[in-house]
Amino acid sequence: MGEFELLAMLRERLADPGPRVRIGMGDDAAVTVPGGATATSVDAIVDGVHFRRQTAPLPSIGRKALAAGLSDLAAMGAEAGEAYVVLGVPPDLDEDGCLEVFEGIEELAAETGTSLAGGDVTRAPALAIAITVVGHADEAECFVTRGGAAEGDTVVLTGELGGAAAGLRLLSEPELADGLDAAAAAGLRARQLDPRPRLAEGRALALAGAGAMIDLSDGLGADAGHVAARSGLGLEVDMTAVPLQDGVAEVAEAAGLDPLEVAAGGGEDYELLACISGEGLKPARESMAALGCPLTVIGRCVAGEGALLSGPESREIQARGFDQLT
Amino acid sequence: MGEFELLAMLRERLADPGPRVRIGMGDDAAVTVPGGATATSVDAIVDGVHFRRQTAPLPSIGRKALAAGLSDLAAMGAEAGEAYVVLGVPPDLDEDGCLEVFEGIEELAAETGTSLAGGDVTRAPALAIAITVVGHADEAECFVTRGGAAEGDTVVLTGELGGAAAGLRLLSEPELADGLDAAAAAGLRARQLDPRPRLAEGRALALAGAGAMIDLSDGLGADAGHVAARSGLGLEVDMTAVPLQDGVAEVAEAAGLDPLEVAAGGGEDYELLACISGEGLKPARESMAALGCPLTVIGRCVAGEGALLSGPESREIQARGFDQLT
Repeated sequence: MGEFELLAMLRERLADPGPRVRIGMGDDAAVTVPGGATATSVDAIVDGVHFRRQTAPLPSIGRKALAAGLSDLAAMGAEAGEAYVVLGVPPDLDEDGCLEVFEGIEELAAETGTSLAGGDVTRAPALAIAITVVGHADEAECFVTRGGAAEGDTVVLTGELGGAAAGLRLLSEPELADGLDAAAAAGLRARQLDPRPRLAEGRALALAGAGAMIDLSDGLGADAGHVAARSGLGLEVDMTAVPLQDGVAEVAEAAGLDPLEVAAGGGEDYELLACISGEGLKPARESMAALGCPLTVIGRCVAGEGALLSGPESREIQARGFDQLT
Repeated sequence: MGEFELLAMLRERLADPGPRVRIGMGDDAAVTVPGGATATSVDAIVDGVHFRRQTAPLPSIGRKALAAGLSDLAAMGAEAGEAYVVLGVPPDLDEDGCLEVFEGIEELAAETGTSLAGGDVTRAPALAIAITVVGHADEAECFVTRGGAAEGDTVVLTGELGGAAAGLRLLSEPELADGLDAAAAAGLRARQLDPRPRLAEGRALALAGAGAMIDLSDGLGADAGHVAARSGLGLEVDMTAVPLQDGVAEVAEAAGLDPLEVAAGGGEDYELLACISGEGLKPARESMAALGCPLTVIGRCVAGEGALLSGPESREIQARGFDQLT
């Protein structure tokens, strides 16, 4: 099957192009009518760098590629809009394999109301997926950046951390799951293979008045550092307050790691960290409760710079973020 | 140098984020205020598939990646807006090499008024660049699709064909340039390494009332076929009318190829093919003359299907488009 046939097949599978899409796949470009303001993010994942085909089912690779992009939109408080997919196809991935990858992308797109509006297919030495996502808001000012935190703001966190990192270890060293509750082990693997972007939570936190927000893709330590740098202040994070996903402590212990360092340094949990003023905290709690999402106060914004993560007895927790090129 | 450092360096280099960009690189997503309608296209190029690092200077690889995307916008009649770049960095490309690639992208962006608004950097087994470009128009109806040709329309072509294919041969078989005028040889190599998107020409053809338009990335035969299929009619193209770039005939002859087949099948010339009604032809000619761009009538739209390319004495010219996965 050639490039044109594969693209034609994908085009046929894309049912409803979405409310803002006037022309979807199949022309030189997709045509959309955005309305107000857009938030656009690009993310690429590559076999051997961000996932391994040996341990990740093809649909979950597609899902994860889109999830990473949508998580960026969540961190802006954006409504999901369109996605544009570049698929790099290695010699040993056949037509069915390509479609499996796309099935994963389509599934998550349908679940999140994202329109697959365009794409490209190319040969490549390894399976690679680059996804551009476009999210929407009425005005540019509705989006929440990394740079709007203020001294005195409370640092809040959605959900639980450490699951993606622990899940990754379980995929490469299954014996670490010995003695671990089966449901917990499955939950950790699912967090690594099939992360869920917190789109509704991001919009709710934006509405509640979050001053700064980021999704935890690089790890809490690194990402809190990004917010600190862009906001021009310091973030003090109490790691003992951070909820760990079920099983993280056990896997960390079995691997000889400090669970708090796993939670602080492991990326890809795709939870949201937000800095929010005192008056915003109550509506934020209420809307998160309505969404069934845990929201935890984990720190505060202070004069200074950088992110300081402290553990029991104020011991500093080291967090090495996941950095692609080192 | 890690991912964060490289991205930070790129961010610093990006001076003016452009008129519609509220937040450029450095946050979870870029924020833009599009205004009317947008045209979005994604293109990826990979070492060993679309170029070879041995024969292509790094800046020209960057330029070409962006040119391919902008050419899609040209074919829509769009005004260039923003670009989002994913760079896949192989183990043997160092920091300086990455910056050289970006220099090429930046150059062409500056020349075309394109804002580099976001990006991602990842390790990859081979140098790969995926670029998403967003173009603009006041309304969705201003864009010219592949599907709007009508029976009786005239088929017109900007510029000259065959140069990119002949240039590719010269890069891999330099001896084919023996006896060829040096300026012609340089022009062929430049067409392959540094194609120019016809943005102004595309907007002018749209304003002149072109019903359908496409950029010639896959080759005249394949791309005329795309227009025929989307417009639900046939395109008759007289290959003897198609202007060949200087030197194409000589290189084709030296390589034992039919120059018209090179012009019909060779992709990547990035000229525009448009279908335009009788009354649109005159303003189209005038605006192309004002832009200093040759515009040639090469055929017409007829009842039927597919693209029929004929040579001397009505002999059919075979055109095999450049298809990624075959």
